[in-house]
Amino acid sequence: MSKQVQVVYHSGYGHTERQAKAIAEGIDAEDGVGATLVPVDELADTEAPAWAMLDSADAIVMGGPTYMGSVSAALKQFMEASSARWMEQRWAGKLAAGFTTSGSQNGDKQNTLLQILTFAAQHGMLWINLNQLPGNNSSSGSVEDPNRLGASLGAMAQANIDEGPDVAPPAADLETARRFGTHIAACVKRWH
Amino acid sequence: MSKQVQVVYHSGYGHTERQAKAIAEGIDAEDGVGATLVPVDELADTEAPAWAMLDSADAIVMGGPTYMGSVSAALKQFMEASSARWMEQRWAGKLAAGFTTSGSQNGDKQNTLLQILTFAAQHGMLWINLNQLPGNNSSSGSVEDPNRLGASLGAMAQANIDEGPDVAPPAADLETARRFGTHIAACVKRWH
Amino acid sequence: MSKQVQVVYHSGYGHTERQAKAIAEGIDAEDGVGATLVPVDELADTEAPAWAMLDSADAIVMGGPTYMGSVSAALKQFMEASSARWMEQRWAGKLAAGFTTSGSQNGDKQNTLLQILTFAAQHGMLWINLNQLPGNNSSSGSVEDPNRLGASLGAMAQANIDEGPDVAPPAADLETARRFGTHIAACVKRWH
Amino acid sequence: MSKQVQVVYHSGYGHTERQAKAIAEGIDAEDGVGATLVPVDELADTEAPAWAMLDSADAIVMGGPTYMGSVSAALKQFMEASSARWMEQRWAGKLAAGFTTSGSQNGDKQNTLLQILTFAAQHGMLWINLNQLPGNNSSSGSVEDPNRLGASLGAMAQANIDEGPDVAPPAADLETARRFGTHIAACVKRWH
Repeated sequence: MSKQVQVVYHSGYGHTERQAKAIAEGIDAEDGVGATLVPVDELADTEAPAWAMLDSADAIVMGGPTYMGSVSAALKQFMEASSARWMEQRWAGKLAAGFTTSGSQNGDKQNTLLQILTFAAQHGMLWINLNQLPGNNSSSGSVEDPNRLGASLGAMAQANIDEGPDVAPPAADLETARRFGTHIAACVKRWH
Repeated sequence: MSKQVQVVYHSGYGHTERQAKAIAEGIDAEDGVGATLVPVDELADTEAPAWAMLDSADAIVMGGPTYMGSVSAALKQFMEASSARWMEQRWAGKLAAGFTTSGSQNGDKQNTLLQILTFAAQHGMLWINLNQLPGNNSSSGSVEDPNRLGASLGAMAQANIDEGPDVAPPAADLETARRFGTHIAACVKRWH
Repeated sequence: MSKQVQVVYHSGYGHTERQAKAIAEGIDAEDGVGATLVPVDELADTEAPAWAMLDSADAIVMGGPTYMGSVSAALKQFMEASSARWMEQRWAGKLAAGFTTSGSQNGDKQNTLLQILTFAAQHGMLWINLNQLPGNNSSSGSVEDPNRLGASLGAMAQANIDEGPDVAPPAADLETARRFGTHIAACVKRWH
Repeated sequence: MSKQVQVVYHSGYGHTERQAKAIAEGIDAEDGVGATLVPVDELADTEAPAWAMLDSADAIVMGGPTYMGSVSAALKQFMEASSARWMEQRWAGKLAAGFTTSGSQNGDKQNTLLQILTFAAQHGMLWINLNQLPGNNSSSGSVEDPNRLGASLGAMAQANIDEGPDVAPPAADLETARRFGTHIAACVKRWH
């Protein structure tokens, strides 16, 4: 039977949704693993079926925009709604990973990934890091390199603040996300 | 004229409110500086008078409970509501400080302080650290020592999960908060 | 064939060594997994046999004292000496975990764990979180509870600054470390 | 009498030294404030005169390269050598700030700034954030914008791994550093 990965995300303007979809594509590209996109709205009610799917997932990947230096309140509300499951450690032993988008190159995205990671740690989950060397870090590099932003704890994307989700984040960041998805799927298969 | 410090806080069950009040007491204990407690609900509407008071404050102190490893969504919503002010850097050059309460001794409170601090950094504010050596770190130490939790970036308090705000956080953590308030007030007076 | 876990550590006064040994005991308690303690001195020369053992390990667990808010320079030197392996991503896909000791209850140990974790992330490793609910967080709790310090990213221990490694860290922190070791070993067995 | 700022730095290949010099230039550009560059080697002996200058400084600015996700061991050794001063809280009430350089755009520089900041917090110092809005975050932005990297906790610079300190970090990052220096000097003047 196929392994299941739930990709929980919040997206304010559609940029983070594009990143989430690229991760899901990367996961689906691996045989035997399937991704489900879960907009955070579907988790507003803790009795909703989307919660049961999280409970049975092999891995939970979570992401949202970095707003004012940390994860959006909308994604944080999902985290808080998981507290009954945390007390039972119902998700312990699953795999987890994270992603985030913001307007600036750095923009404190590191904090957001740390925040998601710490949440996963409290749930007793294992954390899948990005597993990509940095791009765009030499004279022959460019902004078209995968992992051009030089992330390590998860996937980062940058979307210009005056551009819609049709053009931002750029292809390099979506490719980074796709590769990350494939890495996540490969990890899920290695985890028994 | 007196210097003004606004103490913005969210409190789910009253424990963080006790910490906020202790900080305010510590601030008020210093001549020439006055504290105002601002429950985060008063900031739900960005046209509310409480926002104007933040704009004119000498320092903004912020705190909330650590839920699932980071600051409560309720305090985060306030942070996001400040984004128009951020774009104008209207708060740049003010002083800032932070505090948090959680049920466990450590409980990832460090992340919450880092998150508040990063928010203050994005606003161009200066950060006032706790300025207290750790207590309860030797054979003659006890849980009654100020800064018994060994914080550095701001004030931490711990409230047992089965105790109401009438008894938790304990006196040591409230004294830590009070001293921190007095330090904040002294810094405000040194800042021209 | 048995799975191998290398426990790399620096210990200034012996306290962190006790924690490292407790983790190794916990690992060895699980059938089919063996731990090797690697004092950081054995890694001073990158041609030393201890490096080859890291290269072939299934998991690398790393720890050191928290000095002045982050990992000791001695452990950091080991991290820097790994940079050639990082460029080849030779450790990618291994499991990793971290631990630290300091004199105060909190004492910025979170930073140290984050620092070790980020190092593991750069190497493309997966991170094993502590997987223990916090102890000593209710009126019936005590300092004898496992995970009394309420850590999540790895194992924390606290050693009174006037006590030698014969008595500090206390039994609760060593038990926390032991359980963490057993969890690490169980994860190694689930990882193919 | 002029206010004094000590700029303590470690530089492996000269890139961080260029950043340190740019910060010092920015400080010196402000009337009534003078900067002294202090290579970390001068602090190897805690009896060296450079330590006495730190003791009498109005502000201490610290920086180093980000190696393997955190501050270089060489800068960390300086931090550890300050522990006797920490016990006396001899630096409490001074201002502090931080900077770092690494090869990749992000490259976990956030961790390094957090590490320096936490060190300053333990010493009871106040932290001066970068105070610059992010550049290069819109369709009209470019890599020549000040704060092109979108930092907030301090100054970040990026130096291509195949370029010497004659050309890297680029002008934008040195200008960011210079402006940060001027902001630091202005803060020192506001602090009594």
